[in-house]
Amino acid sequence: MEERKFETLLGFIEQKQYHQLRAALADMNEVDVAQFIEEELPEEKQPVVFRMLPKEMAADVFSELSGEVQENLVMASTDKELSFIVEDLYVDDAVDMLEELPANVVKRVLKNATPATRSLINQFLQYPENSAGSVMTAEFTDLRKDMTVADAIDHIRRTGEDRETVYTCYVLGERRVLEGVVSVKDLLLNSDDRRIADIMDDDVISVVTTDDREEAARLFSKYNLLSLPVVDKEKRLVGIVTVDDAVDVMEEEATEDFEKMAAMHPSERPYLKTGVFTLAKNRIGWLLVLMISAMITGGILEGFEAAIATMPLLVSFIPMLTDTGGNAGSQSATMVIRGMALGEISTSDLLRILWKEVRVALLVGVALAGVNYIRLILTYPGQEMVALTVSISVLLTVILAKAVGGVLPILAKICHFDPAIMASPLITTIVDAFALVIYFNIAKALIAF
Amino acid sequence: MEERKFETLLGFIEQKQYHQLRAALADMNEVDVAQFIEEELPEEKQPVVFRMLPKEMAADVFSELSGEVQENLVMASTDKELSFIVEDLYVDDAVDMLEELPANVVKRVLKNATPATRSLINQFLQYPENSAGSVMTAEFTDLRKDMTVADAIDHIRRTGEDRETVYTCYVLGERRVLEGVVSVKDLLLNSDDRRIADIMDDDVISVVTTDDREEAARLFSKYNLLSLPVVDKEKRLVGIVTVDDAVDVMEEEATEDFEKMAAMHPSERPYLKTGVFTLAKNRIGWLLVLMISAMITGGILEGFEAAIATMPLLVSFIPMLTDTGGNAGSQSATMVIRGMALGEISTSDLLRILWKEVRVALLVGVALAGVNYIRLILTYPGQEMVALTVSISVLLTVILAKAVGGVLPILAKICHFDPAIMASPLITTIVDAFALVIYFNIAKALIAF
Repeated sequence: MEERKFETLLGFIEQKQYHQLRAALADMNEVDVAQFIEEELPEEKQPVVFRMLPKEMAADVFSELSGEVQENLVMASTDKELSFIVEDLYVDDAVDMLEELPANVVKRVLKNATPATRSLINQFLQYPENSAGSVMTAEFTDLRKDMTVADAIDHIRRTGEDRETVYTCYVLGERRVLEGVVSVKDLLLNSDDRRIADIMDDDVISVVTTDDREEAARLFSKYNLLSLPVVDKEKRLVGIVTVDDAVDVMEEEATEDFEKMAAMHPSERPYLKTGVFTLAKNRIGWLLVLMISAMITGGILEGFEAAIATMPLLVSFIPMLTDTGGNAGSQSATMVIRGMALGEISTSDLLRILWKEVRVALLVGVALAGVNYIRLILTYPGQEMVALTVSISVLLTVILAKAVGGVLPILAKICHFDPAIMASPLITTIVDAFALVIYFNIAKALIAF
Repeated sequence: MEERKFETLLGFIEQKQYHQLRAALADMNEVDVAQFIEEELPEEKQPVVFRMLPKEMAADVFSELSGEVQENLVMASTDKELSFIVEDLYVDDAVDMLEELPANVVKRVLKNATPATRSLINQFLQYPENSAGSVMTAEFTDLRKDMTVADAIDHIRRTGEDRETVYTCYVLGERRVLEGVVSVKDLLLNSDDRRIADIMDDDVISVVTTDDREEAARLFSKYNLLSLPVVDKEKRLVGIVTVDDAVDVMEEEATEDFEKMAAMHPSERPYLKTGVFTLAKNRIGWLLVLMISAMITGGILEGFEAAIATMPLLVSFIPMLTDTGGNAGSQSATMVIRGMALGEISTSDLLRILWKEVRVALLVGVALAGVNYIRLILTYPGQEMVALTVSISVLLTVILAKAVGGVLPILAKICHFDPAIMASPLITTIVDAFALVIYFNIAKALIAF
């Protein structure tokens, strides 16, 4: 559907039918317009088409564009156009833009902002990365306790144009301290003369500017919020996080966890827009670390060279043993890491998880060992001791793998490391080493070389 | 904070201060009350405390409880109480509840519903699992084109009580066909006498009841929606998905992908609430499949027994080679699978991704092979051919792994399999087998046995 729409737009441009183009753009969703400018237009055409957008649309489209295209548009703007964009952007979008732009362009943008906007932007730029402060915006609706419902609705009608969300209003007391919350639904469902103090909820769920943005996103999902107030250490309201930004945070954090668990440095941008060198750089670090750790595993094998030379058959069970251990461990690690990310598991659950994983490992391990034993007895008749060695090793490896997989992410969290980084690849390497030591020692004990 | 609150509540129960308990509960957030009932109370106390909740709170608390606790409450309810709960629940929550309850309890619940509610619930129960229809609710605000802004606000004030969200209103034409959308913000910011037809947006983003719920969730994140209309094949509005439910879908789908990529059958419930047997059942299937495939890899090694017996040193590089291949492959697979889940990558990008992965693999592979070569030359002086064998094998394995890892998830999607299931463990097994064949054949060619 969008593609057909885009073709029509490109047709207008080709035939220089700018009037039709302008009308078609004005009728589209801002997100689609941004996609059109970004993906369908060559760099030199982007500013031309952007200038055709209706004024009330420009800032919304701008905030949906990537850093490169924003930079391209800023470079092509006059000072007056630039000032218009900056003033019309929500503060959080302006801050996102400035964080991506080169320093000289940032300077030019700030020069064209009003002093009030400039000071607000500067304040927002200082919140630490990944904090609630770094994803909040300043455009919220604030009410006073002594207002009536009619006053409040009137206030929203007068000031709502600039507000990112009008649906949750925050009631502020002296020195802008957050005292209560009231939704527009509450306002509409109460009679005009009721006082805000009587209908507001004074049990406000909020975060502090320095809290983790992930913690803020979790509150959205737990309490089904549309927006979340962000206060400073003195409980004064400084901003709000809106649900669309919370959704972005959730998706970004999940993507980061996927990447870390697959032994990659998280990427800043979508796969198709990331260059080959950046992708390689993000991947090489952990591959090197894990390769070197696997060499240690290899070193363990060297210690058993004599056993291998006498009985090369033992080697053929190594992939099965290490793969099973790795898979069993990363199953446990994945459940625990995801559970912690969703706030379902806390570090105090350590022993509970260890106990659970050991029991699961016993069930799973006995089944896998049994299948192995039967298969080996059938394919290598007369080699009962080999079958026993392999089966016992599988059982012990699975128990070890699940215990390590369940516990290591929690220990990482306790030591303030990122649990996701401790995940599958590292666990696989640890389990590999121990599995081989177990295997060859059992072999030495059970089989006469 | 919550824990202290819960302690106070438990104190009230112990000292039979039911008046204080009731007042404290009424003042709490519904989500916290549900958590208190679920996690702090023994089964027999749950119905007692639930009955103390103010009427307007009961249904909201009920919808936040787990299936078991809901069943417990339903069993303890009189018919009158039950009818009250069913009528007060939003349809989507009622359907969620019924899908978890045993058949005889479902019967009793439906018997106590009004005919209108019963027929609505029955209709909703029929939407396929994981469809947009299965997560929508029926309580939306609908307007007519010929209403004025004042009419519309008045309509919301009269009917809003039952509506899950009042902030996005849908404008319906003849036979309830969806013709436009108008937000409460638009209503408040326009003058009372304007007609809805003039301020509504007729370019409505919507899904069909049978569309995938993941597709619906993607639209929320792309267009920053608060609710999404769901229409039938004749474009008639039948329900809406609200953003809080979309957030749940996103988290569930991400969790499912994490589990599938770690070779597990997705679990229905949080880790700590899942029993040991269910966990073992979810994990054993793939472990068995992968163990058997790893046996095939082992079979390949048996073919090289002679080589191994002559030169056991070769064995000690196997873990490094297969681990590196597995890690390189799952890096690529993870990026592609996540990209597809977020809608950033489509099946038509197959060749683009293959070309990108091969180039990344060349960069990464040459670096890893180089490190290996230098390390082997230093630790095994005079064994240049072993060093060369291992290094070339690493390079070829990384290229193969990244090509397979990038392409396999897309091929899975084209064949209508779940890409996440094709992920790391299966790719690891495939790459393992090929890596060993490459390795020993190069060894045979370069090293005289």
